[in-house]
Amino acid sequence: MSSVSEIDQRIRSSFARMQTMATFGASLQAVRKGEVEIALPFAPALVQQHGFIHAGVLATIADTACGYAALTLMPNEAAVLTTEFKINLLSPAKGDRFIAIGRVVRAGRKLMVCLGEVFAEADNERKQVALMTASMMVVDGGTGLRD
Amino acid sequence: MSSVSEIDQRIRSSFARMQTMATFGASLQAVRKGEVEIALPFAPALVQQHGFIHAGVLATIADTACGYAALTLMPNEAAVLTTEFKINLLSPAKGDRFIAIGRVVRAGRKLMVCLGEVFAEADNERKQVALMTASMMVVDGGTGLRD
Amino acid sequence: MSSVSEIDQRIRSSFARMQTMATFGASLQAVRKGEVEIALPFAPALVQQHGFIHAGVLATIADTACGYAALTLMPNEAAVLTTEFKINLLSPAKGDRFIAIGRVVRAGRKLMVCLGEVFAEADNERKQVALMTASMMVVDGGTGLRD
Amino acid sequence: MSSVSEIDQRIRSSFARMQTMATFGASLQAVRKGEVEIALPFAPALVQQHGFIHAGVLATIADTACGYAALTLMPNEAAVLTTEFKINLLSPAKGDRFIAIGRVVRAGRKLMVCLGEVFAEADNERKQVALMTASMMVVDGGTGLRD
Repeated sequence: MSSVSEIDQRIRSSFARMQTMATFGASLQAVRKGEVEIALPFAPALVQQHGFIHAGVLATIADTACGYAALTLMPNEAAVLTTEFKINLLSPAKGDRFIAIGRVVRAGRKLMVCLGEVFAEADNERKQVALMTASMMVVDGGTGLRD
Repeated sequence: MSSVSEIDQRIRSSFARMQTMATFGASLQAVRKGEVEIALPFAPALVQQHGFIHAGVLATIADTACGYAALTLMPNEAAVLTTEFKINLLSPAKGDRFIAIGRVVRAGRKLMVCLGEVFAEADNERKQVALMTASMMVVDGGTGLRD
Repeated sequence: MSSVSEIDQRIRSSFARMQTMATFGASLQAVRKGEVEIALPFAPALVQQHGFIHAGVLATIADTACGYAALTLMPNEAAVLTTEFKINLLSPAKGDRFIAIGRVVRAGRKLMVCLGEVFAEADNERKQVALMTASMMVVDGGTGLRD
Repeated sequence: MSSVSEIDQRIRSSFARMQTMATFGASLQAVRKGEVEIALPFAPALVQQHGFIHAGVLATIADTACGYAALTLMPNEAAVLTTEFKINLLSPAKGDRFIAIGRVVRAGRKLMVCLGEVFAEADNERKQVALMTASMMVVDGGTGLRD
């Protein structure tokens, strides 16, 4: 079993290789066992046609938070791959900053099910804008994939 | 009822305002009534930690293709908003180019249901990497949103 | 605005017309504003091929709990229709009794998004076996549908 | 590799143990490699509050068709379990008979992704009423589950 600081190190190192996060300007805010939090400042480069953050971008940070939440509970030699996710958009994504929180609901040996929530922050208020459920596969070391 | 060229013009104009597409390097390939196709060349800026295109990025182009497919069937004064989508990832997204095709399965007055497929192209072969179903809301003109 | 007892009455009356619930042996356990609870005793008539309660049966009670949770927040003249739901099965559905709890996460004017959870009870323990997200349409009175 | 008639036999035998199908009055219509079809006559015992077939009942037959479609492609010693599905309801489920068709879109070693469609038949017309995507787990023989 890995210590909390080893888990934190593992997630940060994998996150650093995920170029999409740098492209988006997203950062890792918190890593806990079974829960990961990612922050994304508003960026005009990431809007859809009405000026809101694109639903797919919200999905990207929620999927990432869910995937890393699952990885905190996986064996050292495993890697994580998303097999599916669904997202409900609750309100248009307006705000200064977006926070995605992914949490493991069920940690199976082969699959982990996660719940993701995305919040928009503005004027010191936080409003939920999206809700995700996702399945994460525990990919064993024999495949050559590492995290 | 709009002509095919008016519909084409409307989608292209809305797509051009969607900054996420320019950020990704995605382009509109085809617009037909009830069906839209988007192409995304492979870009290192859009990978996840193992070097595949991020599932969220695939979701973004599939959602966009579905949304615009729905918009081709909406009244002139309406705008389109995604209310939810689900994506199944079928294979790791490796390839030179990715094609997302969105198609309307059911065009209701208030909601449209779409099917999205994403294909990876490499060496003159095309392989399906993702499957999406999505709900698109017909937002009426009174809200101030336009497409 | 309806009183709590009027809401309770409305849900119970609609539930009584839903023949599937009687066929399953399911009952309404609790009605609160934005939250509804349904109980289903184990029944051999509702198993899949390995003897667990069928995933579709769990989905039926979770969808019903979500739909009625949404109805508690709708105007008197509206009816509720499910537009979509997704369910993740967390563990095989073994147990003496199953409890589905539906809760409104976002109450829009046209659509409501709900979270549903199903628990299996056995030996005085409760274990979550399914997780649902669902969209419920607010159908206005002009359609002739009533709840 | 099993012959077509062995596969047919295997699915029919498993279907016969699935009590929910008998309770609903559903029958197996066709078994092909990667595709299974189930029929459900309209039954007042299976309606929701407005007299349409319950969305959960449609989900049950679509999930069953998808699961058995996946099983046709699995090794002899494997069993099938649904890990998740999502269903979009396209129109109220009115009709004399409902046909669910499940088809494998991607047959992985551990997971299979399926597409399910449900049609309502009335007056010699067929109308699609639901669209499902589902993930089916290939459960190996060591678990004790059999199909």
